Amino acid sequence: MDKLLYGVAYYDEYMPYERLEKDMEMMKAANINVIRIAESTWATEEPENGVFDFTHVERALQAAQKAGISVIVGTPTYAVPPWLAAEHPEILAVTPRGQGKYGARQNMDITSPAYRFHAERVIRKLMECVQRYPNVIGFQLDNETKHYNTCGPNVQKRFVTYLREKFGTVEAMNAAYGFNYWSNRVDSWENVPDVTGTINWSFAAEFAKFQRTLVDEYLAWQASIVREYAREDQFITQNFDYEWRGYSFGVQPDVNHKTAAKCLTIAGCDIYHPTQDKLTGKEISICGALCRNLKQDNYLVIETEAQGHVNWTPYDGQLRLHAFSHIANGANSVMYWHWHSIHNSFETYWKGLLSHDMQPNAPYREACTIGADFARLSEKLVNLKKKNRVAMLVSNEALTSLNLFRLPEKTGYNDVVRWLYDALYEMNVECDMLFPEDENFGDYDVLVVPALYTAPRALLERIKAFVAAGGELVTTFKTGFSDENLKVYPETQPAVLSECCGIAYDEFTVPEDVALTGDSLGLPQGAGPARVWMELVRPVTASVLAQYDHKFWGKYAAITENAFSEGHATYLATMTTPECLKAVLTRVLKRAGVWGIEQQAQFPVIIKSGMNDAGKNVRFYFNYSREDVKQTYYHADGTELIGGTAVKSGDTLELEPWGFKIIEENGKEG
Amino acid sequence: MDKLLYGVAYYDEYMPYERLEKDMEMMKAANINVIRIAESTWATEEPENGVFDFTHVERALQAAQKAGISVIVGTPTYAVPPWLAAEHPEILAVTPRGQGKYGARQNMDITSPAYRFHAERVIRKLMECVQRYPNVIGFQLDNETKHYNTCGPNVQKRFVTYLREKFGTVEAMNAAYGFNYWSNRVDSWENVPDVTGTINWSFAAEFAKFQRTLVDEYLAWQASIVREYAREDQFITQNFDYEWRGYSFGVQPDVNHKTAAKCLTIAGCDIYHPTQDKLTGKEISICGALCRNLKQDNYLVIETEAQGHVNWTPYDGQLRLHAFSHIANGANSVMYWHWHSIHNSFETYWKGLLSHDMQPNAPYREACTIGADFARLSEKLVNLKKKNRVAMLVSNEALTSLNLFRLPEKTGYNDVVRWLYDALYEMNVECDMLFPEDENFGDYDVLVVPALYTAPRALLERIKAFVAAGGELVTTFKTGFSDENLKVYPETQPAVLSECCGIAYDEFTVPEDVALTGDSLGLPQGAGPARVWMELVRPVTASVLAQYDHKFWGKYAAITENAFSEGHATYLATMTTPECLKAVLTRVLKRAGVWGIEQQAQFPVIIKSGMNDAGKNVRFYFNYSREDVKQTYYHADGTELIGGTAVKSGDTLELEPWGFKIIEENGKEG
Amino acid sequence: MDKLLYGVAYYDEYMPYERLEKDMEMMKAANINVIRIAESTWATEEPENGVFDFTHVERALQAAQKAGISVIVGTPTYAVPPWLAAEHPEILAVTPRGQGKYGARQNMDITSPAYRFHAERVIRKLMECVQRYPNVIGFQLDNETKHYNTCGPNVQKRFVTYLREKFGTVEAMNAAYGFNYWSNRVDSWENVPDVTGTINWSFAAEFAKFQRTLVDEYLAWQASIVREYAREDQFITQNFDYEWRGYSFGVQPDVNHKTAAKCLTIAGCDIYHPTQDKLTGKEISICGALCRNLKQDNYLVIETEAQGHVNWTPYDGQLRLHAFSHIANGANSVMYWHWHSIHNSFETYWKGLLSHDMQPNAPYREACTIGADFARLSEKLVNLKKKNRVAMLVSNEALTSLNLFRLPEKTGYNDVVRWLYDALYEMNVECDMLFPEDENFGDYDVLVVPALYTAPRALLERIKAFVAAGGELVTTFKTGFSDENLKVYPETQPAVLSECCGIAYDEFTVPEDVALTGDSLGLPQGAGPARVWMELVRPVTASVLAQYDHKFWGKYAAITENAFSEGHATYLATMTTPECLKAVLTRVLKRAGVWGIEQQAQFPVIIKSGMNDAGKNVRFYFNYSREDVKQTYYHADGTELIGGTAVKSGDTLELEPWGFKIIEENGKEG
Repeated sequence: MDKLLYGVAYYDEYMPYERLEKDMEMMKAANINVIRIAESTWATEEPENGVFDFTHVERALQAAQKAGISVIVGTPTYAVPPWLAAEHPEILAVTPRGQGKYGARQNMDITSPAYRFHAERVIRKLMECVQRYPNVIGFQLDNETKHYNTCGPNVQKRFVTYLREKFGTVEAMNAAYGFNYWSNRVDSWENVPDVTGTINWSFAAEFAKFQRTLVDEYLAWQASIVREYAREDQFITQNFDYEWRGYSFGVQPDVNHKTAAKCLTIAGCDIYHPTQDKLTGKEISICGALCRNLKQDNYLVIETEAQGHVNWTPYDGQLRLHAFSHIANGANSVMYWHWHSIHNSFETYWKGLLSHDMQPNAPYREACTIGADFARLSEKLVNLKKKNRVAMLVSNEALTSLNLFRLPEKTGYNDVVRWLYDALYEMNVECDMLFPEDENFGDYDVLVVPALYTAPRALLERIKAFVAAGGELVTTFKTGFSDENLKVYPETQPAVLSECCGIAYDEFTVPEDVALTGDSLGLPQGAGPARVWMELVRPVTASVLAQYDHKFWGKYAAITENAFSEGHATYLATMTTPECLKAVLTRVLKRAGVWGIEQQAQFPVIIKSGMNDAGKNVRFYFNYSREDVKQTYYHADGTELIGGTAVKSGDTLELEPWGFKIIEENGKEG
Repeated sequence: MDKLLYGVAYYDEYMPYERLEKDMEMMKAANINVIRIAESTWATEEPENGVFDFTHVERALQAAQKAGISVIVGTPTYAVPPWLAAEHPEILAVTPRGQGKYGARQNMDITSPAYRFHAERVIRKLMECVQRYPNVIGFQLDNETKHYNTCGPNVQKRFVTYLREKFGTVEAMNAAYGFNYWSNRVDSWENVPDVTGTINWSFAAEFAKFQRTLVDEYLAWQASIVREYAREDQFITQNFDYEWRGYSFGVQPDVNHKTAAKCLTIAGCDIYHPTQDKLTGKEISICGALCRNLKQDNYLVIETEAQGHVNWTPYDGQLRLHAFSHIANGANSVMYWHWHSIHNSFETYWKGLLSHDMQPNAPYREACTIGADFARLSEKLVNLKKKNRVAMLVSNEALTSLNLFRLPEKTGYNDVVRWLYDALYEMNVECDMLFPEDENFGDYDVLVVPALYTAPRALLERIKAFVAAGGELVTTFKTGFSDENLKVYPETQPAVLSECCGIAYDEFTVPEDVALTGDSLGLPQGAGPARVWMELVRPVTASVLAQYDHKFWGKYAAITENAFSEGHATYLATMTTPECLKAVLTRVLKRAGVWGIEQQAQFPVIIKSGMNDAGKNVRFYFNYSREDVKQTYYHADGTELIGGTAVKSGDTLELEPWGFKIIEENGKEG
Repeated sequence: MDKLLYGVAYYDEYMPYERLEKDMEMMKAANINVIRIAESTWATEEPENGVFDFTHVERALQAAQKAGISVIVGTPTYAVPPWLAAEHPEILAVTPRGQGKYGARQNMDITSPAYRFHAERVIRKLMECVQRYPNVIGFQLDNETKHYNTCGPNVQKRFVTYLREKFGTVEAMNAAYGFNYWSNRVDSWENVPDVTGTINWSFAAEFAKFQRTLVDEYLAWQASIVREYAREDQFITQNFDYEWRGYSFGVQPDVNHKTAAKCLTIAGCDIYHPTQDKLTGKEISICGALCRNLKQDNYLVIETEAQGHVNWTPYDGQLRLHAFSHIANGANSVMYWHWHSIHNSFETYWKGLLSHDMQPNAPYREACTIGADFARLSEKLVNLKKKNRVAMLVSNEALTSLNLFRLPEKTGYNDVVRWLYDALYEMNVECDMLFPEDENFGDYDVLVVPALYTAPRALLERIKAFVAAGGELVTTFKTGFSDENLKVYPETQPAVLSECCGIAYDEFTVPEDVALTGDSLGLPQGAGPARVWMELVRPVTASVLAQYDHKFWGKYAAITENAFSEGHATYLATMTTPECLKAVLTRVLKRAGVWGIEQQAQFPVIIKSGMNDAGKNVRFYFNYSREDVKQTYYHADGTELIGGTAVKSGDTLELEPWGFKIIEENGKEG
């Protein structure tokens, strides 16, 4: 990327009156340099079967061209026109709740031949149309693509084929899934029962995994079409999204981002997050880290909120804080969903940058300052590179399995992930995210592995090898519990890692009024309650950092650490308070030599770093709080980029509520 | 109406043993002068297809005739016989949950030709039978008729026809509904998708509106049949009901009472309400006011509880308080659902006046005193007329749209209505209810408009004109937000009313820890929390009565008032405490000159007034509390009607728990 | 039974690797003397339609034989193979939610001919196979059989036949069910509507009763097949279960255990219960009493938890406490579900005695002590007989009806049962359970009748006769409310029992802020709140033990007692606190002369007694608490069986947390 992109989704199609020239003028004034168009407007582009009309697309392209604004063109396929559903009702996905009805987006069967036929035709027509416009810088495939839980008979058939390819014989499948249980044993591929009724989570998890491969295949298919038309300099991206809890929370259950991203030239995502007093930067950071991994490079934030949800209306300064938080994580763009607030339908209250009156307003005025800053500082902030020494390993398979088996207190996989990630974040430890597909565990000093419920023996062996080679492993309850088919390892647990962690357990329960106690952690008056899950751990070679403070469970360990070959493994057998977890992580980070100057500050002051194209370190000091904060500047002397003033190490930075400073160090890295 | 009606629903059909003579005797002893029969007993009247048997109906008519009791005959059509559902399964309505099953009442498709054919035939047979009985004073069409969310393919077809008539072209519809969004654009009337899957609330709200027209048409059809048989002196009514929250709460979502009532000669309704310590008279008052509007006249309370719900078992005195509360609101009848407590089926615990043992009991003994009072005072209390100076404008369309878009804290339209209505009620301000169809805004000094989310420009202009002409407008957040198609007005908000209110806003959010502060209201230590919704209002010409007490939102107004031409407009941009609201209303009422002697008392003492046929004012002083209350009598000298004693202005009225006094003033009004 | 059985469910089919010899060795070491096999493994036994393979069954039988372990063989029919569902989809039960999907167990239509054909064939093949093994001591029919709410068209047809047989004419049915209400009157048997849509609880309750007869018939059918093959000395049992609230709670709604047990030779059940700090012995006691009734004899505990649910992981000592609690209630076996923890599928977290690593662990080591104790003490503890003087009458019909009409606070029938049972339990009053089918009310001094909502007149007359003959009746609100068709008795309530209880009522309500007050009970400062329900009782001849402490309800009685002929009847018109209830029960028990030495102790110390085959009384003193307890030994001198030491009356027993003592008295009873 040669510059920071600052943009909005723009829909000429949705305007209640002619606005195009006015809008372009207002964008230009705000230094908005890119718009995203066309996505989800199939019914406008192909109003009748086989009749194409790209007027809105071309109007937008021409107006943007005139205004010097770049364009990302999205394929329109994630929402189908009424005529298509009317002609081919089968394109609406059958889910466990039956077949969907027309109305919502993202409710089609992405494997449907009728859908594919029509989708391909409209994509080709669109590409033919837009390829002549020089200001098109890239393409977005579909949007937030998922499998929409499609599981009709045709999908079931494909799944059986997939099973046959995986297992060869039904006997192998029966054994892997424990199908003897409750008479589920299958006698032939023809009689594999509909997976939607199953009570066998091995089978169910396999289906979820299979469904994720449908997304890989679908995106690769779209990419191959778009590539036929795209110029060399035009990128192909996707707008990946994350587990949704009213905002972007963590690992996406329905897509394996790592494999799905293979067909892209640049990774993209949307990140939505709470604001007002709940603005922390955590979602921006973790989702950014997940996206950064995909192409091992900078990424695009293709959507984020300007106003968004009604309870996200930003305080003054927050839009700026959002924008620079994305950049600090390695994003090369900040693009709002969307330019204006829509006047009808489902997202009337998902507000854009402009409100419904489409006049300059508080968010727009703040966007103007961001746009100006981006334009001015682009060269210094684009393509920021990270060099993190801590990484966290996450897995879609672990997510599926843990969510199927359900921990108490509605604790899902991502809750465990966030418990760990958020502690690191608040300690100002920048952390990369890894997937099982990644081979480079050895690039890191510390590897954090949350609840890796299901893993093939080879993956567990790689983790063990990381420790043996001198790494610091932090892992938790439920790691190493079952193999890749969700068959519980019939051996000492945590399986494979038992020796490396120096522990064994075979019983576990749910803590009720169980506190933790342990001198090693140096927490005053105990280490708070155990939550959600507790394994009754027997230390073998490990030392005990904390045990359960309970009349009958007191003999078991809650947190252990173990020296193993060149490294160490720390095991959390229960979910602790953040304070207790931070005490554990502090031990680990110090031992690993990862304890640095950043750890002198802590949330709500967040420090982020990156190296820019000039090889200089850029330091971001963010204040995620409603109060003024005075914060010592710890890094090397440099220049504060927004204000342009010199800053010396040891100076006090005055951070306004939701304010920040960006210092480019004077010297060059490496 | 020439006398007060005191009555019960009576079902000879439901008796576990022969009771008719005994029941008539007990009714006579209680001065019960009307029974309601026949409704919902289709299977008894037509036990087999085409075989009619009106034995129970005629027995009841004859026994009542002998006992000097009048009869209201209901058409039996709101519950269909098993044989009809068996022969024509299609009469069971298809709703978004699929087709209903036989069993419950009110689950048919009221548009079904098979249903209509059989309903018409049984109505005609019934009318032929009952027309010869002189004691039939009127007819009730069906019962609590609604559309039961019928939305099967046949209804969808009709809806498309309705849309075509409304819009002429799909292009006009696409524009009005913003169907370009998410590819919902329709290319032809044939391809209009099933509305039950839609995510476009413009489309959904239109369907709700269309469904309400089905009720209008259905009742008009029944009225036209009944009218063929009815005598001149016999009335035709309906038993309208209200939004149900375990009791009658507010505006009925599924029926437009105003248009549905056109085919009636007198309005009727049922009003159920909490009792025991939760008895307040509020539901009696607001539902009465809604019904009073329909024919601009007195109305019938066709159903209310004697014992009713198990947690409504009345305290001593409460049945009397209910009864006279209805009269004080302009009702000409009080009729219980129902005479006895039913021994089988769904409403076993919806108890009647008699308990299951059908012996004289506490409620019956109290009913005897009510019956005697009604008989004695009928001439003075029948046809009471109101002359209110405050009115509230409510709208089914606003209700539908606000419920579709959902405010936080599960706040529905009627919650906003009741927030305002209940404050006025507790302040002893009697208030009429208006519908958008009413043209007489000018008859009032104060117009209260809760959350009029959707309104055509013309309606908003009429409200503006009311202010310009010297009226006092009190309106709230969300008024004037969207046009009649739920398209948000793309202009300064509140649309059309912005100038008249002297304010503008384009942002809004949900209050979290936001208090109100404002000296003008004179509330001690702030004005309590903002709730549910808060618009970030910028005063233009308005003065600020209260603002938000919040670090970042403090610059915006929460409550404003504005002089506009001859009148004033007060705007509540958030939901306040009742205390704060009452302070606002006090300002408005005083300025409007509506502040009277009634406002010296307040809930739990409620004062109601009406003018009787003799032109005399009748004053009701109710005590809705479990304590004895001494209350000054503020009105002109008169006679207390129950006790027959003279009362002078300034006298102290001693009100027992759940007690009341009724004073007919000596002089004549006007 | 000639010895105590200590056993586990064992599945060679489920093992992740060859374990049979190892498992038998470990069982033998633990004195496990019986395994239960074959149940639910149909797909392994008949892998393809008509192809049978009993390898796993025979392997287990042979290995057990070699190890000297007995075997109970279960028919495999409660989970069907995939090929059967694929060939005959109609075997999956249609419930009110539609037809089930393949996957779960217990989802078939037990009336389906296809299911019956295949079930019979596999049972016969299994019986042919296992009949040659001498160590098979008995058979279990199916497992936890219920009707699974089967209600498809074929079941509806049968139901109509059942109705025709019951009523003869539709007129009789219409009258019994009050079908005139809401037009439900039926004109012919062909038009009886689908019961799943009904709002008539008489009809719905009849269907529930009919569905329970399907279970009777189904089990009798299986018994008749098994009996063709069984030897004289082999028993036939069923594994009955109880209302499930995450654990065994009370009367099973879906099976009439009394009638279903007719085809068995010994009663069996599973009892699951909370452990850890929630271990009370209550479920073991009440479910044991229910099972003891069925054959008026000792019973088998066929399943209970070893580890079970994740929050049931036992504290040290709890497994022993469970085991001896079952024996103290008259069980002749304790068998765990199941031997090992399963490595795949739905019950991965329903852990067995061994954990997933299948190594000796804490529960196994405790089981070894239990097995040793059982082996050593079998002669003294097998076949313990009870002689209780208090009985409680429970009824499936009352359960169905009360659950249909729904008391407030989600109070179901079993909550009322448990309110009474648990109070007796905590007072150390051992109590038998009776069903309406039992004729021996006269065997008891005290009869407790919770909320007998529906009862034919004859049953109420029998209760009245019990009182007249000198019995002490304790009954509650809702008893005697409706006849066997759920028609409310149209007479003074409680119907039939009004005279005997000396009271009358016709009104009732839900208590809100209503306390009880009454000197007679001698409770300090009132008797706590009234809960759930309150009848407004007028004493006629009864004396008032407590009345309502409430401004308006104070005139009504809450608890009354009445001398009637030779006996007394105590009536609880509301749900009281346990303390208040215990005060009432104390009065009754003392008057009945049932107040004994056991009542000097109370929960958490629980005393249980039984007479062994030697005619000696055995006394169990259990400590259901986490604290050490010193408890006086009240009974006659004897020998503590676990430790083998002599104990004298008056000695202090030292009970460890979750500990117990078992004393065999020296002298012989009777």
